[in-house]
Amino acid sequence: MSLKALDAVALADSIRSGKTKATTIIKETLQQINKRNLTLNCFTTVTAETALIQARQIDSELEQGKPLGPLCGVPFAVKNLFDIAGVVTLAGSKINADNPPAIREATAITRLKQAGAILVGALNMDEYAYGFVTENSHYGATPNPLDRKRISGGSSGGSAAAVASHLVPISLGSDTNGSIRVPAALCGVYGLKPTYGRLSRAGAFLFCASLDHIGAFARSVRDLATIFDLLQGEDPKDPVCTQRPPQPCLPALYQGIEGLRIAIADDYFSSGAEAEALEAVETVAQQLGVKQRITIPETARARAAAYVITASEGSNLHLANLKTRPQDFDTATRDRFLAGALIPSSWYIQAQRFRRWYRDRLREIFQGIDIILAPTTPCVAPPLGQEKMVIAGEEILVRPNLGRFTQPLSFVGLPVLSFPIKSPNSLPLGVQIIAAPYQEVLIFRVAQFLETQLASNSNS
Amino acid sequence: MSLKALDAVALADSIRSGKTKATTIIKETLQQINKRNLTLNCFTTVTAETALIQARQIDSELEQGKPLGPLCGVPFAVKNLFDIAGVVTLAGSKINADNPPAIREATAITRLKQAGAILVGALNMDEYAYGFVTENSHYGATPNPLDRKRISGGSSGGSAAAVASHLVPISLGSDTNGSIRVPAALCGVYGLKPTYGRLSRAGAFLFCASLDHIGAFARSVRDLATIFDLLQGEDPKDPVCTQRPPQPCLPALYQGIEGLRIAIADDYFSSGAEAEALEAVETVAQQLGVKQRITIPETARARAAAYVITASEGSNLHLANLKTRPQDFDTATRDRFLAGALIPSSWYIQAQRFRRWYRDRLREIFQGIDIILAPTTPCVAPPLGQEKMVIAGEEILVRPNLGRFTQPLSFVGLPVLSFPIKSPNSLPLGVQIIAAPYQEVLIFRVAQFLETQLASNSNS
Repeated sequence: MSLKALDAVALADSIRSGKTKATTIIKETLQQINKRNLTLNCFTTVTAETALIQARQIDSELEQGKPLGPLCGVPFAVKNLFDIAGVVTLAGSKINADNPPAIREATAITRLKQAGAILVGALNMDEYAYGFVTENSHYGATPNPLDRKRISGGSSGGSAAAVASHLVPISLGSDTNGSIRVPAALCGVYGLKPTYGRLSRAGAFLFCASLDHIGAFARSVRDLATIFDLLQGEDPKDPVCTQRPPQPCLPALYQGIEGLRIAIADDYFSSGAEAEALEAVETVAQQLGVKQRITIPETARARAAAYVITASEGSNLHLANLKTRPQDFDTATRDRFLAGALIPSSWYIQAQRFRRWYRDRLREIFQGIDIILAPTTPCVAPPLGQEKMVIAGEEILVRPNLGRFTQPLSFVGLPVLSFPIKSPNSLPLGVQIIAAPYQEVLIFRVAQFLETQLASNSNS
Repeated sequence: MSLKALDAVALADSIRSGKTKATTIIKETLQQINKRNLTLNCFTTVTAETALIQARQIDSELEQGKPLGPLCGVPFAVKNLFDIAGVVTLAGSKINADNPPAIREATAITRLKQAGAILVGALNMDEYAYGFVTENSHYGATPNPLDRKRISGGSSGGSAAAVASHLVPISLGSDTNGSIRVPAALCGVYGLKPTYGRLSRAGAFLFCASLDHIGAFARSVRDLATIFDLLQGEDPKDPVCTQRPPQPCLPALYQGIEGLRIAIADDYFSSGAEAEALEAVETVAQQLGVKQRITIPETARARAAAYVITASEGSNLHLANLKTRPQDFDTATRDRFLAGALIPSSWYIQAQRFRRWYRDRLREIFQGIDIILAPTTPCVAPPLGQEKMVIAGEEILVRPNLGRFTQPLSFVGLPVLSFPIKSPNSLPLGVQIIAAPYQEVLIFRVAQFLETQLASNSNS
């Protein structure tokens, strides 16, 4: 088995056991990026020098017998909205390219580095995280590694594609309306959007303060749980970050699903999608022995309200630049920001009021249910540059509708893991495993059970 | 000393000791209301029947030797935005008069009744609490009891005037931008606007969810502390209401002010006011031996932001009626609601962002200071019907500018007590005693010290 095929935990083990060296891994990673990024267009910055310094440091500490973290020597990369000391935080824009390099580094990066992970660069995204396609007019599109004529999804498209193409085993992204889950599904990797406020956003360039989450991509459940556990814990630099004590998920990973009350979301979540997207949910439900269905009321409204809040908060953040240098925005982003700036406060306030109502409905549902299953996207990755698609007989716009199933859930801050469903003759899809706030541990138990189950199925 | 001159605590004592009966007090109170309300126009509803039933109940319990609450037999009244079971909650409007009577009663009313207080009616206010004058086009103006050609202030004008005119010893009101403090100052009574979220708003008709507070009026510091202590404590019916354990203020009332770091707010808070309003602050400072001055930065912006949030949230709440029956609003209120409905979401979001900044500045200031002093209003009660006034040589509108000194403080939820300053040949004024969130106890210690001090001065 080549190193490329290993997940982060296995890679760290092989370094810790002396089978390979961090320097070897990082050199190989940088070589691969150098060779393949021209076509994959995942990376916008490669931090080769600092990565090699850190790799040598780890190898030397290993030689000295020092204890090393759970991700020692594992290369990772981050969506280019995370601050990397010495690098300009682009957030996918041309405007931010005028900013001075970041002085400090995002808390999430620091925590992964403290666990031995080695940052190798920053990844492409939709401008200011406003999109589901990663077709960036300044930095180019990031094609889907599984079919380069198609999109990776967005806005964390670079983060998903870098993991799917084995350039790095793990990466960080952000999710406001689905920006981790959508590209994870379309690229066939695991993506986690945790509970709102649970992981520190300090040093991440915001899009919509009341909706932004950071999260991660990986190729195994245990990798994702490892990252999540490392990133948990309060951070004085992020006032939104929860002060609840961390609850590690790794120790619970193999506890199985007995006793968990799992249901399939119907109504809104079983319409407006290609048959194969709904079948992916049924496949997962079958593996879990789940038959129960539940209805989350008024979900179309929840999505509409998420739009209003996103457009309002996003445009407020960029208002000065929209007034003085509109030509420097990505046209796809600018027009929505401009429209957002015209939304009356009354719509915004109403959307926030409805949000509390919808949150309360979900709280009630989670009294009787532990896990909800829903599709991640309504379809597999559409072709690059395609504006419209036909879903369930209706012609709709690609860009907004990829978030149909993800938006209503981030709207009320629920933790969600997008589980990749692959079939031999088709592009991948994702199934959202959804829990009540702060119940990531239940999500991980289900995901690990599924991963084990599906692996044993395909081996038999 | 006539019963009318007693404060609530003394009145309860006289009932408890058998000197008088609750029934006697309530009959006398109802008689006074009946006789004097025609000119005072404080009450919009008198709950005579239920008040008499409750009074008889208390007298009978007293005869049976049952233990009675700290406000037993004390009449009180509430701004007509508090739900009284069986009464239509007007909130100063004609539109709400079409609503069915309230089924439940506001938590604050229930808690006072549990302490033996007897509700005698509902009090006049600016329509939907949007004003500082209580010149209500549907229910008439509430003139100032100390000079009937002048306003009582608002929006809780009826609550302040009812206490100032000795119709009741205590009353409840609400404060969004100064609606308790302004009429308390102009009518010469004590008014308390507690920390945002500290007292339950359940059963109070809202104006601006993120700015509304409930609070109380009284003629003595101990009465106000008694009410505050009774109203503290979480309430499952109010999701905003804090879950911090109550901290009784009565036991600390006579602890004095030694060790308290007190300062006078300068800059914004020492300009835009008549000399006498600033002198009132100096008088208080002198009594307290305070010379230190502090500057709260960007207070003009704080007031502007409070306006934006008030207009946006208020208009959102009434949007449906503004669209379908604008003619039924008070014109003074309607035009501001209509303007508020046109505010772009970007202004609102920016105002909320600035709010966090300003809150953080005040948190820093309260690291080194315990109490801040500032004027309550820039002037004494202006004449009824007067649109403009000249303050410090500048002609300005009466209505909005009465809140010049109160708005920036409620904006960030600080607890404030308006302390009445009376001089023989002039109308009263108020001084705001301001503390950090949840530090009401410090405010009460200062207020009690001042009350004692000023009483002994005027006696000597």
